Amino acid sequence: MFGARCLLRALRSCTSAPCPRHKPSARLSVRDALGARSTNGERVKVQGWIRSVRSQKEVLFLHINDGSSLESLQVVADSSFDSRELAFGSSVEVQGQLVKSPSKKQNVELKAEKIEIVGNCDAKAFPLKYKERHPLEYLRQYPHLRCRTNALGSILRIRSEATAAIHSFFKDSGFVHIHTPIITSNDCEGAGELFQVEPSSKIKVPEENFFNVPAFLTVSGQLHLEVMSGAFTQVFTFGPTFRAENSQSRRHLAEFYMVEAEISFVESLQDLMQVMEGLFKTATMMVLSNCTEDVELCHKFIAPGQKDRLEHMLKNNFLIISYTEAVEILKQASQNFTFTPEWGVDLHTEHEKYLVKHCGNIPVFVINYPLALKPFYMRDNEDGCCCDLLVPGVGELFGGSLREERYHFLEQRLARSGLTEAYQWYLDLRRFGSVPHGGFGMGFERYLQCILGIDNIKDVSLFQDLLIRVL
Amino acid sequence: MFGARCLLRALRSCTSAPCPRHKPSARLSVRDALGARSTNGERVKVQGWIRSVRSQKEVLFLHINDGSSLESLQVVADSSFDSRELAFGSSVEVQGQLVKSPSKKQNVELKAEKIEIVGNCDAKAFPLKYKERHPLEYLRQYPHLRCRTNALGSILRIRSEATAAIHSFFKDSGFVHIHTPIITSNDCEGAGELFQVEPSSKIKVPEENFFNVPAFLTVSGQLHLEVMSGAFTQVFTFGPTFRAENSQSRRHLAEFYMVEAEISFVESLQDLMQVMEGLFKTATMMVLSNCTEDVELCHKFIAPGQKDRLEHMLKNNFLIISYTEAVEILKQASQNFTFTPEWGVDLHTEHEKYLVKHCGNIPVFVINYPLALKPFYMRDNEDGCCCDLLVPGVGELFGGSLREERYHFLEQRLARSGLTEAYQWYLDLRRFGSVPHGGFGMGFERYLQCILGIDNIKDVSLFQDLLIRVL
Repeated sequence: MFGARCLLRALRSCTSAPCPRHKPSARLSVRDALGARSTNGERVKVQGWIRSVRSQKEVLFLHINDGSSLESLQVVADSSFDSRELAFGSSVEVQGQLVKSPSKKQNVELKAEKIEIVGNCDAKAFPLKYKERHPLEYLRQYPHLRCRTNALGSILRIRSEATAAIHSFFKDSGFVHIHTPIITSNDCEGAGELFQVEPSSKIKVPEENFFNVPAFLTVSGQLHLEVMSGAFTQVFTFGPTFRAENSQSRRHLAEFYMVEAEISFVESLQDLMQVMEGLFKTATMMVLSNCTEDVELCHKFIAPGQKDRLEHMLKNNFLIISYTEAVEILKQASQNFTFTPEWGVDLHTEHEKYLVKHCGNIPVFVINYPLALKPFYMRDNEDGCCCDLLVPGVGELFGGSLREERYHFLEQRLARSGLTEAYQWYLDLRRFGSVPHGGFGMGFERYLQCILGIDNIKDVSLFQDLLIRVL
Repeated sequence: MFGARCLLRALRSCTSAPCPRHKPSARLSVRDALGARSTNGERVKVQGWIRSVRSQKEVLFLHINDGSSLESLQVVADSSFDSRELAFGSSVEVQGQLVKSPSKKQNVELKAEKIEIVGNCDAKAFPLKYKERHPLEYLRQYPHLRCRTNALGSILRIRSEATAAIHSFFKDSGFVHIHTPIITSNDCEGAGELFQVEPSSKIKVPEENFFNVPAFLTVSGQLHLEVMSGAFTQVFTFGPTFRAENSQSRRHLAEFYMVEAEISFVESLQDLMQVMEGLFKTATMMVLSNCTEDVELCHKFIAPGQKDRLEHMLKNNFLIISYTEAVEILKQASQNFTFTPEWGVDLHTEHEKYLVKHCGNIPVFVINYPLALKPFYMRDNEDGCCCDLLVPGVGELFGGSLREERYHFLEQRLARSGLTEAYQWYLDLRRFGSVPHGGFGMGFERYLQCILGIDNIKDVSLFQDLLIRVL
């Protein structure tokens, strides 16, 4: 059926071995080069960006980074290679021999035989300056360039690793991953701060016909996870969520990531809290073991003392206090709060931070908030219905609750709020084989702030909200 | 600092072992029960939903499913347990002994000692009927209930597994995962079909102050990945993307997931195509080996013959033809097309499907489209600049290209389109250590359609677009 030409040009089968004709030297990432066990003069090719240049009388030293690790590879070259173009920020390709380094600073180095400038760097215009440690605040002005610094490079690798660790925690525990919708007609908690979505005015589709109801960006995947927990006993989602809060705070973003889980046949808050503590500790241990150097950089230069604080969180069992106890503790505090603590009113960040300190900087679950403070879906339960996990530095990290699975209770609460019609589908879940269930959500950026000790949430969120202004 | 009460109530350390006081029998998932090696009369507890009931004179047979596997667990009970409430769709908790089954249909069965109805199912109102195989089209009306069928249960587990497989392919290959922004001010390809985002009119923030530029839902994370590929040689993203196409087609969704990758120091299209082929084959093999029964169900009942078609795709090297060859093939086709094929015009789905058939139903890369058909960022390259991968049943699955990394070429193209100011940040990437790079995107729902043989994209997307109408 198809011509010989097609057949002849079939792709060679997939292999990680490079094609010998085009690439005489094996291409290595900096990470693999640094980790090479044997250095028997093998010829390799390394590509990356110059992080430092040191020119001596007869020798030229370069450090090359390609993002595969925090550490750069030292390239040693004859001074004849020296050129003005071999400058901080330029991209290069270096071929040569990987040899044992005489210096104690590194195991191996690359003895250059050929250095090719791939792309120059306009040093005058480049906002990142050689040998300068730029404050995170300065870097926030350059969301498209800041990933080229050590600090942001480390945060990015940690964020990637933490994402993988969270997925793997749930997969290993038998959870099914669900992509809950981003555009949705429900506002989950009745919170008013929504983004509305409409076809751009540029296009020809009549707007009123596009969605048949007002459509918003999701504030939580919980209700959709509850749909799934009518068929799967353990489900989770990990995706973007939105709040139209024009907040300049260090703790809020308009767009952020949330990890949410829902578990069927759950009988007590205790069961839920165990999963939350397990998630926090397991994921963190994985990040620490897979990104040791990157975490060290944050703990050394961005948040001194954070290493000990994190160890303290990991080695202690999380605590539990009731909402009522929490309010008592706050009332007896010597500290003056901007918002006076009072039973029946939600806790503010200042309260949350005080409570964690009071509990010896161990993460603490505050359980059993008054029902009136919580949304319609929360179970009206005598011995505990909901919990927030407060952590050092951040305040609220997790929120969780048992959901109202009893048809008549839910129906009454919906009727009282005039929501019966809109939530008919949600009531349906309780008509057909309803089960006791509960779940929780964790803000991913806050999680990163908590383990790394990073003060401003904008430094762990790689584009938002800066992008919208700068790019 | 903190009271004894706090300490006493520290959570017991996380463990998967159940607490003996509350749970006399070990709680097992259906999957674990079915996979139990030894059946020495161990007492267990299984929770789930009734999928079938068969009442004999002295014995009652139930099948219990909890979403952990396609297969259900057979429960054998004394007929005295029989009750009207033990019906299709009800949720139950069964305690008893796990024993070897005398039947050849299953290895083990649960000899019930206690059966508790957790939630009744209103059979008359329940749209899923016992022993009926509902068509996918019928199920689409019940996005909140259809996950309770075998077919959708399998698709959901496969979707979850495919998500994990894709993440793991990239992680194992050294890629860094990036969360590219959802709300963005750039429209990437200049495509007009965007969703615009604004704070809901309900809230008090003055709209004009929220974003300082019009904000849209992302149509691709590519340009943001390119930011990252100035520091990392391999990056990927896997998230929701949007098109305001009010399409009733079987191939389009307003909200869908895209897997996108960007690779630095890439020299040829060939390199990119190898990664695409590798991703397709590696992820598919993982799905086939981890979800064997679920894939079999799809291949048996939804798309007969798909098993052989998929094997054919996996065992053959993907093919390559040029755009010019493709147009020639189409012109010589005996088939009548709705859109007459013509050089210089984009391929339509009918053309794509014909080309794949012509190539013996092996996935085929069409390379080197005329530059004028492609967006501004594509490299003007003599020996190949871009490729689309066409696959059986679906048509275009991947699109990839080398990007224009040369400052002056890019500047000229942007100037011609009047985009220079808006894309200053993108030009910046070429001023500071630019590198040759390229990447690709794969539609995740289309990938699932392709491997499972599912005709309508709405059956692999669990909520959209139905949700917006029904829920």
